[in-house]
Amino acid sequence: MTQLAQPDLWAKAAQQQCATALAHPNIAFIKYWGNTNHQLRLPANPSLSMNMAGLHTVTRVEFDPALPADTLEINGVPATGPGLERVSAVLNLIRAEAGVAAPARVVSRSNFPVGSGIASSAAAFAALAVAGAAAAGLPPVEARLSRLARRGSGSASRSVPSGFCEWQPGDDDGSVAFSIAPPEHWALADLVAVVSREHKAVGSSGGHPLADTSSLQTARVAGAAERLRRCKEALLARDISAMGPVIEEDAVIMHGVMMSSRPPLFYWLPATMALIQATARWRAEGLEVYFTIDAGPNVHLICPAEQAADVEAKARKIAGVRDVLKSAPGGPAHLLAPGDEFLHP
Amino acid sequence: MTQLAQPDLWAKAAQQQCATALAHPNIAFIKYWGNTNHQLRLPANPSLSMNMAGLHTVTRVEFDPALPADTLEINGVPATGPGLERVSAVLNLIRAEAGVAAPARVVSRSNFPVGSGIASSAAAFAALAVAGAAAAGLPPVEARLSRLARRGSGSASRSVPSGFCEWQPGDDDGSVAFSIAPPEHWALADLVAVVSREHKAVGSSGGHPLADTSSLQTARVAGAAERLRRCKEALLARDISAMGPVIEEDAVIMHGVMMSSRPPLFYWLPATMALIQATARWRAEGLEVYFTIDAGPNVHLICPAEQAADVEAKARKIAGVRDVLKSAPGGPAHLLAPGDEFLHP
Repeated sequence: MTQLAQPDLWAKAAQQQCATALAHPNIAFIKYWGNTNHQLRLPANPSLSMNMAGLHTVTRVEFDPALPADTLEINGVPATGPGLERVSAVLNLIRAEAGVAAPARVVSRSNFPVGSGIASSAAAFAALAVAGAAAAGLPPVEARLSRLARRGSGSASRSVPSGFCEWQPGDDDGSVAFSIAPPEHWALADLVAVVSREHKAVGSSGGHPLADTSSLQTARVAGAAERLRRCKEALLARDISAMGPVIEEDAVIMHGVMMSSRPPLFYWLPATMALIQATARWRAEGLEVYFTIDAGPNVHLICPAEQAADVEAKARKIAGVRDVLKSAPGGPAHLLAPGDEFLHP
Repeated sequence: MTQLAQPDLWAKAAQQQCATALAHPNIAFIKYWGNTNHQLRLPANPSLSMNMAGLHTVTRVEFDPALPADTLEINGVPATGPGLERVSAVLNLIRAEAGVAAPARVVSRSNFPVGSGIASSAAAFAALAVAGAAAAGLPPVEARLSRLARRGSGSASRSVPSGFCEWQPGDDDGSVAFSIAPPEHWALADLVAVVSREHKAVGSSGGHPLADTSSLQTARVAGAAERLRRCKEALLARDISAMGPVIEEDAVIMHGVMMSSRPPLFYWLPATMALIQATARWRAEGLEVYFTIDAGPNVHLICPAEQAADVEAKARKIAGVRDVLKSAPGGPAHLLAPGDEFLHP
């Protein structure tokens, strides 16, 4: 499915200047870390990810000339300050493109913990871009929506297309994500071993500018395209024993950059390390499971769907693991029909 | 003190073809990881370390024509296989240089856990080089002794000179360590938070050849000289707030290389990560403590001696810390007078 598959919903949204969209977070197999342009969020290197079907953010955008300014509510709590400014910046791009002047009322809810290494901003800005564009009467052109999402949060560009998505560097119009395989291509499971629900001390947006202060970042960026090529080839061939070592290596390289930046970013916790060590043990026991870790302490355990129950049971026994969130590959960011939106609280 | 300060002991050793030497392990502030020549153990980059006064290895070497071959006893247990071969290789260099033909009886004891990330091979081969050279009648020339130690274990080159030692790359004769400051230069403490006493799955000698399989190693090597320059400048100025961030960065960069090599080496355990996180917290509480980590899970906490008791007490409260070993800066590898050797069991 793409956004193009919902012509009636897009027409209705434009008519009512109101739309609700759902987007999944994504887990990067090849990581995004560092920009060539921070304001435009143009990434230093290409990246590759999988949308996470089990988790989502639902966002409603309603343009209303009666409002004095944009308003934002996240999980029932009114938001102001930097969070609202970041949303308004994306809405301003949409308004400029669509010729809309009205402020917007934005209401957003997620079914997963925000700010703990699960890409909450990716789902949030993908949903905002799609709902905002629809409510403003823009056409459902995936690349344009991916660009809008990227301007809010780089990795959000990858939550717009469906399934397994690649995001290439480029200029403002060209740096967009596209699907390389639909969700049904491969029954992979992502089991997020949650070791902390705390909000990160340094979020991704604050971290990206630090990437260039690490003496390892140039090497990380230089090797990313080749790792992406190997990862993509293995992914398209559904070969987890070829893909797994690449995603582990890529994750560790990103954290090597983070830990050696000035100031350093240490996202890992003791339970993170326990899970890294355990993954190799579980493989020795016959499971095809590999780890990856975003900008946070939680560990994403990637395995074939048929091994997910085994891996989940083992992960829950690791000291410090508070929960395990299970996701299959997820679809694209898309509009919800009025009424349907209440199915996704 | 240098080995030159013991002319009587060296003369007596040559006469009796028997000598006993004591050497300390050292903790690297700028790490050695990877060689340009594995057989000669010529390092890929310069490194910098501090001898650890609290820990030592005592080794007696006795050349005896009546022996059929070299024998080795470590901590009361006869050793054969690769361990003995590695010792014989260094003895062969000594024999060739001294024109000695006799096999040797080597007895070695350490007062610290072997193979757990404390540089046991550094102390062992420094003590072997000094005792072996003295027993073979070679002169007490520090650079020559450092070279002999290096041939047994790269980092052992740094356990031969006194106090704070620098080891530069070079050719077989030129790649030796030298003291940049004596132990009394700076009352630093190294508190080793021992989180595992297990023997490492992959020792340093097995790990060095893997360094070049990491895409980060070239960048690590390229930056080492500059980090060493900053570290040395801070060390000579006794400025821990300048030295600390450099040693943490250098340690993390080495572990980034290890974790991204093929196959990867994950030396850290959950308690390692807890100590990394705690160090920053303790600094926020006013302690001038910084971490470094060798090729193992144990964390070396470096702080001014007057803060050592506070840091030790805090480290002992971290889950997974089994012991804390305290060291001041240590002296050079040196001979022990007969009788004196029993003071160091």
